[in-house]
Formats: sequence, structure tokens, C-alpha cells
Amino acid sequence: MSATPVKQKARKPQVLKGFRDYMPRHMILRRRIIDTFRTIFERHGFEPLDTPALEHIEVLLGKAGENEKLMYRFFDQGEREVGLRYDLTVPLARVVAMHQDALVLPFKRYHIAPVWRAEKPQRGRFREFWQCDADIVGSASMIADAEAVSIAAEALAAVGLPNFVIYISHRRLLEGIAVVSGVDPERAGTVYRSVDKLAKIGANGVLAEMTGSGVDETSARAVIDAVTETGSPEELLASLRPRMSAYEPGLKAIEDLEQLFAVLPGLGVPEQAYRLDLSLARGLDYYTGPVYEATVTEPNVGSVAGAGRYDGLVGNFLGRDIPATGMSLGLERIIEVVEEFSLLPTPPTVAQVIVPVFPDTLVDAARLAQELRLGGLRVDFSLLQNRSVGEQLKYAGRRGIPFAAIAGESELERNVVAIKNLESGEQVEVERAAVTGELAARLANAGIA
Amino acid sequence: MSATPVKQKARKPQVLKGFRDYMPRHMILRRRIIDTFRTIFERHGFEPLDTPALEHIEVLLGKAGENEKLMYRFFDQGEREVGLRYDLTVPLARVVAMHQDALVLPFKRYHIAPVWRAEKPQRGRFREFWQCDADIVGSASMIADAEAVSIAAEALAAVGLPNFVIYISHRRLLEGIAVVSGVDPERAGTVYRSVDKLAKIGANGVLAEMTGSGVDETSARAVIDAVTETGSPEELLASLRPRMSAYEPGLKAIEDLEQLFAVLPGLGVPEQAYRLDLSLARGLDYYTGPVYEATVTEPNVGSVAGAGRYDGLVGNFLGRDIPATGMSLGLERIIEVVEEFSLLPTPPTVAQVIVPVFPDTLVDAARLAQELRLGGLRVDFSLLQNRSVGEQLKYAGRRGIPFAAIAGESELERNVVAIKNLESGEQVEVERAAVTGELAARLANAGIA
Repeated sequence: MSATPVKQKARKPQVLKGFRDYMPRHMILRRRIIDTFRTIFERHGFEPLDTPALEHIEVLLGKAGENEKLMYRFFDQGEREVGLRYDLTVPLARVVAMHQDALVLPFKRYHIAPVWRAEKPQRGRFREFWQCDADIVGSASMIADAEAVSIAAEALAAVGLPNFVIYISHRRLLEGIAVVSGVDPERAGTVYRSVDKLAKIGANGVLAEMTGSGVDETSARAVIDAVTETGSPEELLASLRPRMSAYEPGLKAIEDLEQLFAVLPGLGVPEQAYRLDLSLARGLDYYTGPVYEATVTEPNVGSVAGAGRYDGLVGNFLGRDIPATGMSLGLERIIEVVEEFSLLPTPPTVAQVIVPVFPDTLVDAARLAQELRLGGLRVDFSLLQNRSVGEQLKYAGRRGIPFAAIAGESELERNVVAIKNLESGEQVEVERAAVTGELAARLANAGIA
Repeated sequence: MSATPVKQKARKPQVLKGFRDYMPRHMILRRRIIDTFRTIFERHGFEPLDTPALEHIEVLLGKAGENEKLMYRFFDQGEREVGLRYDLTVPLARVVAMHQDALVLPFKRYHIAPVWRAEKPQRGRFREFWQCDADIVGSASMIADAEAVSIAAEALAAVGLPNFVIYISHRRLLEGIAVVSGVDPERAGTVYRSVDKLAKIGANGVLAEMTGSGVDETSARAVIDAVTETGSPEELLASLRPRMSAYEPGLKAIEDLEQLFAVLPGLGVPEQAYRLDLSLARGLDYYTGPVYEATVTEPNVGSVAGAGRYDGLVGNFLGRDIPATGMSLGLERIIEVVEEFSLLPTPPTVAQVIVPVFPDTLVDAARLAQELRLGGLRVDFSLLQNRSVGEQLKYAGRRGIPFAAIAGESELERNVVAIKNLESGEQVEVERAAVTGELAARLANAGIA
């Protein structure tokens, strides 16, 4: 053991490609958004859950498909093969199987945590990113799907993205449209993939793609006619019903969606916030019921939330199906957009007030800082004890702290505190007893929560 | 792409040894404690920071010492050697070096995040556990150390551990005591290690250990006399001063501690919450100034927080020293103790109210649930639409939801809602307009926040 600190050659400070530090200015906004989502999830009765970052590789494999290649996997000290979790759904399925005796079904849980994928890094895509999922396990009720949609709607509105639209469809409905349009079941996959591109490549593009893949033109046109029909959800479903009479799962899907749409207004989802969009085909190999995707076009940010019902997945570890549905907020994308468009103005520092120090009255300043903290304020007690008050305030200004509460010798003698607005330079003196209230009022006026 | 969900053989659901799921009941308490600490850190002006779970191995190595063996390390897809972070101090040092132009020093940050160490799993020790650190980088002022102590004091009191004592010493003081007691500098390490065990093995044990390791008995006795002296910090420091006159760093240490202890009362740390303990020797190869350790003996839980000043570490990546100090709350230990002794009674579910559903009045029930949510309540909207109200309430009872708000056909007709206490069975009817207020009052009465 050395008596002096071990000195090393300077190591190169760098982060891995595709990874990043969350610096305070970003982190303050990030925490605010995450806290907002947590509050909404809990207001809907969803319980918090967390799971290990590392799992047995056998737990992670099997469902990931293409993603398996992107998994961080290695052998640990005990020669077990392990992997970093790459989503929050597989851990949920494992938890439900492992803790089935302790869990009361239906089980509503949310999980906000990082996942890791060794993807090619590119703008806005990271190898470590946070997912933000709310799921309901053990209920086939469409109320569960309606809850998922309503949570998405509340969450997006709460972070300043009011102009979203949640597109809703049903996995069995597009399937039914293909069937009743006469598409060869072997070409169904082509239909889903092509229709999903409708917004991107237009009806003619979809037609060309389908016929190019061997779907006969009459069937292809019938599919396109069906998925491009416009109208309210009720109108569209009513119009589809007779055509689905030949396809039982399609009729069931219509019934499901009727129930789902009937509950949404009661749950406070505004009418303009959702639409039945029969061309929505997200993840058809995974979903088994309603699917949804929230898109923001103003500003043009694309998909910000989505998911759907996946009755076949959670029971994976149990060997039997358990109905499940949920939704996933595109947390990283949402944070990026909120930041880019300043949708939630957030101060650059948590500190609301700095209390400068003076050598002779250090303890009095400490007492003032502590008093303000007990009054609920976030207070930076200055560490610059050998600097002038001007330099201390300059430091506070550089950090973006909005106010200073100054109690030098002259203020202490008169039992007052000087409050200085560090942006405007305005300074007032208030009675010592009134300082917390006065600062709180000025912070509220300045919109600093 | 298959039209039906892919079916797999049931996989064995298990977690890795030393890892664990944070189930809702635990997670609710865990989040509450973490949020409490966050609030305290921010009230002291500390900024939130987060860093990647994975780092270049060169970043992690060098400081970890013994811990290096416990590091999870592997080669990623790009054949870079990477490791999972094993503490939050090394990432802080890297961040300070990488972002030095953007950071305003002194920089106060807190970081609450998981770390990974492949330790031998045992009761209360995990391979994935969360650390909870608050540090100040770029200040040599003892005000910084006093802040660290005061944060620890506030944090422990806030989670229901009021009977803690923060033992404070100074790395250079024990060093000085050894020097002026005539201990051969080569035997200094032995002195530190032995003295650190004083509480465990007693003065005779420490004496035996020191003399057994080659410290002459007179010096050993002088060391023990010095570190076992009792008195207020001021008395002890005054009594040490003349003896330290031969050892300049010891005199500086006395001055440091005098400043530290002078500020503590102003920062609201109660007198009985701290003590100068010259036998405290934690991590002497790492710390360079004041060191502290908080211990709870009632209940007997041992160390719950600690740290100190480490001026040689953060500058590691910069190649020059940057003063730094801070403290680390033993988050996992604290959570364990709070849970074991029910120090913060916490409900088993986030939901405060269940709203049961009836087939004919589903939308009305949804409206009621949403109304309660907008009133700030956490509401589980029942998914058991095909079950009797009795079964729905039984489900709520199993989850531990305290109240039900029932609006069946008869209640809707009369514009009332029935509020049922699911523990006592008591049921009252209230006007529809009064239901949110009534539930809020009953929850407050029952102490459910």
C-alpha cells in the first residue's frame, strides 16, 4: 500500500462507438421525460419492473430473429454463455414464467431501461439505448389494448407532441383482406410487406410490387381498394363486415376493433388522435391482434410509439399461450425530438439559486443555503470561498443558475438577504424571513419548476 | 413469414447466479428510495449524469486493482475489448477529461446506476448492483467535503435511518499519527490496516497485530493512545496540534478538519450525527484528505455510506491532478435494511383504486377511471369484463389495491359512485362530482401517498 496516490500515465478518454455520455443538460430533460412517462404508467395502474442487464444466452435466443446477430454475447468467468438484453419483452416473458406463483394475472407492468444492440451506428441510432414499454399480460380483453392506446396518447401529449396520430389496425384484418381478395396464401407475406409501404411508395408502387411478386392483378387491386378506403373506424368496419363473412378470424378482428374503438373516447383519447388504418402491417409475424403505431408529422418526426397484441410470445417459457398486449414509446426518438424542437423548455442546471460565501460569514451562508433547501429550493452552496462575490456569480451564470441569494456582512447586520436575478442583473433586498417565499415566487414567475 | 406465431419448445426460465429480478413490490420501494436520494442530491445543486454500461477496457483498467479480476470483459463484434463498468468513479474521471471544455468546474454530479462485478455471490452481495454517488470535481475547499457529509446525513434520515453516526477522519492525520509516534514509514501500511480493525478486535488486538508485524511496542502504544482519545472534534484536534508540529501534512489535515467541522452545523447536520474518529482508515491508498463512513448500529446494519476526498484520481485521464471529493450511499444495503425493518411502509401496488367494469356500462366506467386519473389518482381499470364484480374486487384485493370505485347501472342512474374499502369491506355512496376528493381524502387518511 503506497502512501501517496498511485500516478498513472494519462489514459485516452473515449467512449465506444455507438455509445454516449448523458451529460447534465441532456440528462435533466431526459429524466423529466422519463418521470412523466412513469407517472402516466402508474396512473394507469402499471407496476414498475426491472430485470438484469445480463441473461443466460438461452433465455435471449429464439425470439430475436435477425436481432440475434446484433446481440452482445460472451462467456463469463464461470464459462456460462451470457448476453446483454436486447429488448424488454423477452425478460418479461421470462419473469412471468419464473414468478407465475407470485404474480396476479392480469399483470400490468412498465419497464424503462437500457438495451444493447451492436447495430451499425448512425445518426440517431445507438448501440445502447433505452426502451420504455408498458404491457398487460394475461388478458385477452380489448380493454387492455384500449389502455395501451390511451397511455400512448397521454404520454405523447404530455411531452409536447400533441399533433400525433395513432394508426390502428388488426393483424387478422389485413390477413382477411388478402384471403377474401383471392391472394394465394403463399403470397400473403408479400402483401403485408408491400402494403406496409403504402405511405412511402403509393398505391401504384404497392400494386407493382405485389404483381411483380406473383400476386394476380385483380387480387392486388382488391387489396389496395380495401386498405385505402377512407372513413371513420365504425364506417370502415361496417363496410368490411360483409366481405369478411367468408373468413372467421376476420370477423372476430372486426368485433375486436369495434370494442377497442368503443372504449377509447371513455379513456379520454381525443377523436382526432387515432384512425383505423388497414394498411398498417407492422411486425405481422409477431403480432396476433390489434396493432398500433403513433406518428407525428408536425414536426415531421415519423414513428414515436407502437406495438400491439402478441398472444403467442409471453407463454414461450411456459409452453402455453398467454394473451398479452402493450405498447412501446420510442423514448430515444421522443427525447431527440423534444430536445430539437424545444418542446419542453428545461433549465441547463438543476440549481435554482446560488448562495455565495464570504470567509468571515461562512457558517451564516451555510445556514441560509440550508434554510432555502428546507423550503424546497435547489441550492448551490458556493465552493469558491477564496474568490470575490463577482467571480462567484460569474461561475453561477456560466452554469445557468438563475438567482443568487447573497448574505454578506452588511446584509447579515440588517437581517436581510439580497436576491439577484443573474440574467437581468436586477437586485432587491428582502427581509431574511421572506427570502424563501420571494425566491419561490420569482422562480415560478420565470417558469422554472 | 409465417401467418401464425412461431411456436417454440418451452425454454427454461432462469436468471444468472448473482443477478435478480426487481419485482414490483420491491421496485416500488426501490424507486421511492432512489427518488428520495435524487431529490436530496438536486436540492444540493448536484447535476444528474449517466454514462455507458460498456467502456473500452483501457478506460476501466488501471485503477480497479483487485477488482480487475472481477470485471466482465469480452471482445465485441468489432474485436474491440470492452468491459462492463464496475464503478461510477472511473466513468466520472473519463467524462471530466472528455468534456473538459463543456464542463464548468467545480462540477457537482450525482450518478445512480448499476455496476457489474463477477464476485462470489452470497447473501446480500450481487453481481449486478446499483451505486449511488455524489461527487464534486474541481474544488479543494472543505465546504465540498462538508456538503458530502451533509448529503449523507440528509439521505439516511430521509429513508428512516435516523440513528446513524458519520465517522470522520483525515487520511493525512492517521499518517501523521504513525509518523510522530515513531513508526517506521515501511510499517505504515500495517498501522492503517490494524487500526481500521479497532472496533472489531479491540485495542489489545490492534496492539498485538502491530507489534506482530514489526512495529515497536512504544510506537504502537502511542498510535493506539492517539486514535482512541475521546472528545469533541474541536478538543481532539486541539490536543493533536502540538504533537503534529513535526509533520506539516498533519497540521494541514487538522486545519482541513477544523474547517469541515465548522461548516457542518450550518448545513443542518445534527451534532449527534457525526464524530471525529481517528481510527477510521478506509481506503488509504485512494483517499488524500477527509474520509467519512456512516454506520447504523440501531438496527445493527453496519456501514451504509462513505467515501472521502481523492485528489489524485479524477485527473487520471488528463495527466494532472484535479481535486475531488464525494460520497457513496450504500444503496443496495440501505434498500435491504429499509425493506427488512419496514422503515418506509410502502404499498404492494402502485394502484390506489380499481374501477370494475360491467358489460353494459363499459364506457361509463372508462370515463370514471379517466376522471379519477385526471384528479391525480392511480387507477386500475379492470380488465375482467366477463367476471362478476365480486371476482373483480377479489382480484383487486389479491393485488393489494386499497379502494374500489364502483359505478354500475344503479349507481349511474342515481349519479353516484360506491366507494368500497377493500380491506375493511366498508362501502359508502358519494355524489359523482365528489368521488375524486372523497377517495383522495380516504387514501390520505390511510397513509397511502
